[in-house]
Amino acid sequence: MTLRIIATGGTFDKRYDPITGQLVFINSVLPEALERARITEPTTFEPLMAIDSLDMNDTHRAQILSACERSPEQKIVIIHGTDTMRETARLLGEAGLQKTIVLTGAMVPYRVASSDALFNLGFAVAVAQLNAPGVLVAMNGRVFSWDKVRKNTTDGIFENTD
Amino acid sequence: MTLRIIATGGTFDKRYDPITGQLVFINSVLPEALERARITEPTTFEPLMAIDSLDMNDTHRAQILSACERSPEQKIVIIHGTDTMRETARLLGEAGLQKTIVLTGAMVPYRVASSDALFNLGFAVAVAQLNAPGVLVAMNGRVFSWDKVRKNTTDGIFENTD
Amino acid sequence: MTLRIIATGGTFDKRYDPITGQLVFINSVLPEALERARITEPTTFEPLMAIDSLDMNDTHRAQILSACERSPEQKIVIIHGTDTMRETARLLGEAGLQKTIVLTGAMVPYRVASSDALFNLGFAVAVAQLNAPGVLVAMNGRVFSWDKVRKNTTDGIFENTD
Amino acid sequence: MTLRIIATGGTFDKRYDPITGQLVFINSVLPEALERARITEPTTFEPLMAIDSLDMNDTHRAQILSACERSPEQKIVIIHGTDTMRETARLLGEAGLQKTIVLTGAMVPYRVASSDALFNLGFAVAVAQLNAPGVLVAMNGRVFSWDKVRKNTTDGIFENTD
Repeated sequence: MTLRIIATGGTFDKRYDPITGQLVFINSVLPEALERARITEPTTFEPLMAIDSLDMNDTHRAQILSACERSPEQKIVIIHGTDTMRETARLLGEAGLQKTIVLTGAMVPYRVASSDALFNLGFAVAVAQLNAPGVLVAMNGRVFSWDKVRKNTTDGIFENTD
Repeated sequence: MTLRIIATGGTFDKRYDPITGQLVFINSVLPEALERARITEPTTFEPLMAIDSLDMNDTHRAQILSACERSPEQKIVIIHGTDTMRETARLLGEAGLQKTIVLTGAMVPYRVASSDALFNLGFAVAVAQLNAPGVLVAMNGRVFSWDKVRKNTTDGIFENTD
Repeated sequence: MTLRIIATGGTFDKRYDPITGQLVFINSVLPEALERARITEPTTFEPLMAIDSLDMNDTHRAQILSACERSPEQKIVIIHGTDTMRETARLLGEAGLQKTIVLTGAMVPYRVASSDALFNLGFAVAVAQLNAPGVLVAMNGRVFSWDKVRKNTTDGIFENTD
Repeated sequence: MTLRIIATGGTFDKRYDPITGQLVFINSVLPEALERARITEPTTFEPLMAIDSLDMNDTHRAQILSACERSPEQKIVIIHGTDTMRETARLLGEAGLQKTIVLTGAMVPYRVASSDALFNLGFAVAVAQLNAPGVLVAMNGRVFSWDKVRKNTTDGIFENTD
């Protein structure tokens, strides 16, 4: 298995800016997170964009699709904001690529205490390895099909729409 | 899916004792780790024992097998020391239970900076969910069959014995 | 020496709210921070308020002054937002209490990676112990008199106004 | 004020070695800790040695004394193991240098969860700034004179010998 990790931003990758007091994107935390993970198989990291998923538009999503299309790796994990993860998953799902594409993210930034980010990364890497081609969302320790998932923004959890 | 997490100790769960300066077992970190993970499906945590896997003998392994046998959940993740993870996996594998049993652990304790523990937990939870009954080792972002795995103690990584 | 720690909120004490994605005040981190500090002398913690210092008005500052006045301890450390730390220091300084009052805070929240909060707490506790009655600001590893300090918001550091 | 920080090893600076499972010295954590501290005054870091203070002999202590003697800075913080901090403090105290020398350390390594290291560093930096020439031990949020301090190894705290 060779794996590609594509970072697009989202809560997972936010950092605290001491000057403005805001959560912002500076350098991706993924290289550090992947080093911690001690993965022995070849893994390619692609920092594609660094935005809040509420700021994603069709152009951004087209870029993500394009990155998946040109990926030489058949197994792809996309780090994505949770708010519009479903929309990106839908675009990728409808494209029907012959690759296993798993979207994950975090409810608490990697660099904040008690973050779920590293758990989700581990979970998503396994989901990518173990599934046939298709597009999946991996959050809250669950796997969702791209066309049957929504974020429950009241409780901050992902749910099946069935 | 309902999941059981069985803690047996190992590096994953070691804490620093400020009085002796040693790494010891006090309370398991698993409840805290599972809360971080934000898993929404029912998950049962069973703190079975808390020992270094180098100190495990046949009696300990029989206890682990027994815990797996009586588990009402079909999906089991065992947190285990890495040094004899292979031996426990073998005992469980030869028992041939109709459950999916995944052994994982950590090379760096959960409570030490840059630990792989939370990544491994997420990875193992997905491996348990997505595999048919059998016994697997999940380390270094890879899945190993119980009868084809060894720890390379020089490099600190798990390898396939094929 | 007996010491009182008064929490008023500020960046030091902010936590990430996974539902809203905002930094908010829930429970103070001070009890946890003080336990880490392993202080052996009696220390009283008073969670007085939990607000951003930009939201502080005269009523809030009067409450802080009142808390200092009624403190049975002669040594007081106030955890405060950095943006209006100077204003509160001025009010306390002009009141001329016969107590050593040290204001500190953080540029990065305690619960965010690479936070200065715990360093500042240690620094401020020593400053309180070692100074005669008066009002001081302790930030950036420096001690400032209440009437000669400003926050340089461009660089995110405290400076002497002399 | 200009400050020198001299690292000698000790619990403060220990890291976990994933291969051996032991706490060892690799690179000092002090540069990272000092960056977090956001100190604005010039600070010089000198990694003098990296050993457990139980392994310190007269030669090591002579090196520490020599480093203090040649320090151009008048304010010195020494990061030291706790077990023989008292012995080094005594040697330095009897030398009677005209510098303010503060020894500190940690009961829990900097890189382990809930470490007191960063608090102690902040505390010691203030103690160095605010005291006249002499040799002091700064631990547990207290300042001790070099000739009136001992470590209570049962409770893991420093005490006054008076």
